[in-house]
Amino acid sequence: MKFVVTDLIRKKRFGSPLQDQELKFLVENYVNGDIPDYQMSAFLMAVCFRGMTAEETASYTQFLKNSGSTLSFEAHHPHVVDKHSTGGVGDKTSLMLAPIVAETGVRVPMIAGRGLGHTGGTLDKLESIPGFSVKLTLTEFQKNLETRGFSIIGQTNEICPADKKLYALRDVTGTIDSLPLICGSIMSKKLAEGLSALVLDVKFGSGAFMKTEREAIELAQLLKTTGDRNGVDVHVLITSMEEPLGCFIGNSLEVFECLEILQGKQRIIDGEDFYSDTKELTLKLAGEMIYAGKKADNPEAGYKMAQEILSSGAALKNFKNMVEFQGGGLEKAFLGCKQVYEVPALQSGFVTKMNVEALGMASLLLGAGRQKASDVIDPHVGMEMQTRIAMPVKKGSPLCLIHSNGHEEKEILTQKIQQAVSIGNQNPGAPRLIRKTLR
Amino acid sequence: MKFVVTDLIRKKRFGSPLQDQELKFLVENYVNGDIPDYQMSAFLMAVCFRGMTAEETASYTQFLKNSGSTLSFEAHHPHVVDKHSTGGVGDKTSLMLAPIVAETGVRVPMIAGRGLGHTGGTLDKLESIPGFSVKLTLTEFQKNLETRGFSIIGQTNEICPADKKLYALRDVTGTIDSLPLICGSIMSKKLAEGLSALVLDVKFGSGAFMKTEREAIELAQLLKTTGDRNGVDVHVLITSMEEPLGCFIGNSLEVFECLEILQGKQRIIDGEDFYSDTKELTLKLAGEMIYAGKKADNPEAGYKMAQEILSSGAALKNFKNMVEFQGGGLEKAFLGCKQVYEVPALQSGFVTKMNVEALGMASLLLGAGRQKASDVIDPHVGMEMQTRIAMPVKKGSPLCLIHSNGHEEKEILTQKIQQAVSIGNQNPGAPRLIRKTLR
Repeated sequence: MKFVVTDLIRKKRFGSPLQDQELKFLVENYVNGDIPDYQMSAFLMAVCFRGMTAEETASYTQFLKNSGSTLSFEAHHPHVVDKHSTGGVGDKTSLMLAPIVAETGVRVPMIAGRGLGHTGGTLDKLESIPGFSVKLTLTEFQKNLETRGFSIIGQTNEICPADKKLYALRDVTGTIDSLPLICGSIMSKKLAEGLSALVLDVKFGSGAFMKTEREAIELAQLLKTTGDRNGVDVHVLITSMEEPLGCFIGNSLEVFECLEILQGKQRIIDGEDFYSDTKELTLKLAGEMIYAGKKADNPEAGYKMAQEILSSGAALKNFKNMVEFQGGGLEKAFLGCKQVYEVPALQSGFVTKMNVEALGMASLLLGAGRQKASDVIDPHVGMEMQTRIAMPVKKGSPLCLIHSNGHEEKEILTQKIQQAVSIGNQNPGAPRLIRKTLR
Repeated sequence: MKFVVTDLIRKKRFGSPLQDQELKFLVENYVNGDIPDYQMSAFLMAVCFRGMTAEETASYTQFLKNSGSTLSFEAHHPHVVDKHSTGGVGDKTSLMLAPIVAETGVRVPMIAGRGLGHTGGTLDKLESIPGFSVKLTLTEFQKNLETRGFSIIGQTNEICPADKKLYALRDVTGTIDSLPLICGSIMSKKLAEGLSALVLDVKFGSGAFMKTEREAIELAQLLKTTGDRNGVDVHVLITSMEEPLGCFIGNSLEVFECLEILQGKQRIIDGEDFYSDTKELTLKLAGEMIYAGKKADNPEAGYKMAQEILSSGAALKNFKNMVEFQGGGLEKAFLGCKQVYEVPALQSGFVTKMNVEALGMASLLLGAGRQKASDVIDPHVGMEMQTRIAMPVKKGSPLCLIHSNGHEEKEILTQKIQQAVSIGNQNPGAPRLIRKTLR
């Protein structure tokens, strides 16, 4: 071998940046099996402590990308844009973004993920539609994009096999939470889509991986630099995940919310539209994507275009077309659950805070998500929020409704949700959803 | 499993000490194969960054020890003492210590190691004696101890299998140099010998693993605390390895030096006895062992007893008995090499400094040691020092003699040795060999 693996591990351990060729050697030889897991996991742990420079991160990401197939469009097609979110609870914007943005002529090649832990995944949501297949080949996917402008599929074995293998190793060695490793994992898959630009929704708060705005900005900057160094224009929205996004949490329930929004509906509870934040974030992200895809002169113009596409029904039509084309049938999508019950507030006051991660974990108890990758989910179950931060609640009134198929222990779940929603006497004011934009 | 391995890895990663039960779980399940290498190597790398508390180190060491067989003597036999050196170049004291100390009634159960890298190993030195077997069973070893008072054997598979497996993993994952891991590896094997006391020779300087006296003291204190917490009385000598110990480097050459010292001989070169430091360190360590084994009231009295045993010929007799008993024949031990040549000084002046690690590595080129564990060594080759720090040298006069069987490239070796010995105009004064004692 060209390098001695322990030399490279020790170089990182003692804080020296690795050269391009050294990172390339590590990634390539790990994928082909010449470097064993036990050496790579020691290296990954050293990265957790020492980090990587922006230059190392960009190179590492590039080598992950190069480990597999990449999409390519006509040379330098300036209108290929995707969105990626760092994950949250109730975050269903992708389902509407692709149908909205594609209508402007921007191509949206969305390779999406599954839910893990407290956060949901776009693929699980789409698969709650009976018959819907996310398993297209890359060839079918690319053809879809050329004829219909957008497509949403699952991770394939052809894209970034290095990331797949490394992610699995990080998962079992306590090395998931490292900014450069997270960045490499996110960006390699996105770079493989052959994008001209990428819009990122980097979330922070109790329901996000990044707990503070400062951490989110740090990650955002690293993601942006990594994109820039790899020739992709990256725009970032820093958004709050201090309460669930929208009204529903749970796979088919979230598809239902999207269809209602695509149909122009609202969901008013105590005078508040519980769809308004989902809709607003979707339009902001869509506007940014349209701008990044050079179909609008500025994000505000993009936002207006998105608004019109939504209200004209064009986005709904595109969404329905996608469902039909990928084999799904919406008529049987919303079967409902065996039981719907309320989780009552234990006292009166204002909702001051939500532990959104705990709410996401509660939806796992219902069967809506996975604790580990091999868990099977129930597409129909979930939660329907009846309150949000800064709203008044009365003792005994519902914090949320539970759509249940009986997987959970009702008392335990009820308690967990009651504990996750703090009620106090002072109205804290509603949190701002979109905090910052980096371009 | 009782604990989730990633939880334990992450606990260490984020700086929390592990509980006894958690360390026990890790060691036991790693040895039995339930915890894979890739998880353990991530844990070890986290230990390299976070360290272990004295309490964790003592527990970790205990669990390594408990992974295999341990020796035991009559309940609380107060006179079982071994010595361990952290390794150096020309360090042959063990060969004389056991025969000297055993003569006082202290039992010396010496489980010794092999050379790796620039440092030599007691087993390789003994095996240079034709027929000498270091492969006794633990039962034979224990019987030897009871009838003859001492025995020197190699590591067996029954002793500390956890250390064996962990050491091999650390070797290929860049995690060798971590004080608690080094401490665990050294002390677990010594604790398994059923000692009442242990005398440590912790070396520092250009020929030792610890480069500074401060580092050596830090390791010494950790070793001592770990011994104390496991019920073994630990005495430490902090000694300098800024020049090779004694006159000879190389396996049969070092046995030769020991035999000469055991016979009361000197080796005078330019008015200096080149055996004096080997002899002095041996007597100091022996005195400390005799004192630790409660056969002398203080180390000075122990030293005097050791001196008498050496000059009376009793130690020589014991050594010869051991050789005979373990199958060796001294009459064919010193065959000599094909060629002996000089490495001349390039200038006149005083020897101001030696790069002892480089001298050790030079002896590897001759075939006297191993770069990796599977290398085969030539027992006869080595170096015979002709100068030491603070001695005057003349341009062209020999720095050392090379005993060669033609494995090396003569010009390269000569250059390396010339580079390793610094010559200047100022006499730096001879370095003090024994710097500090911890009891």
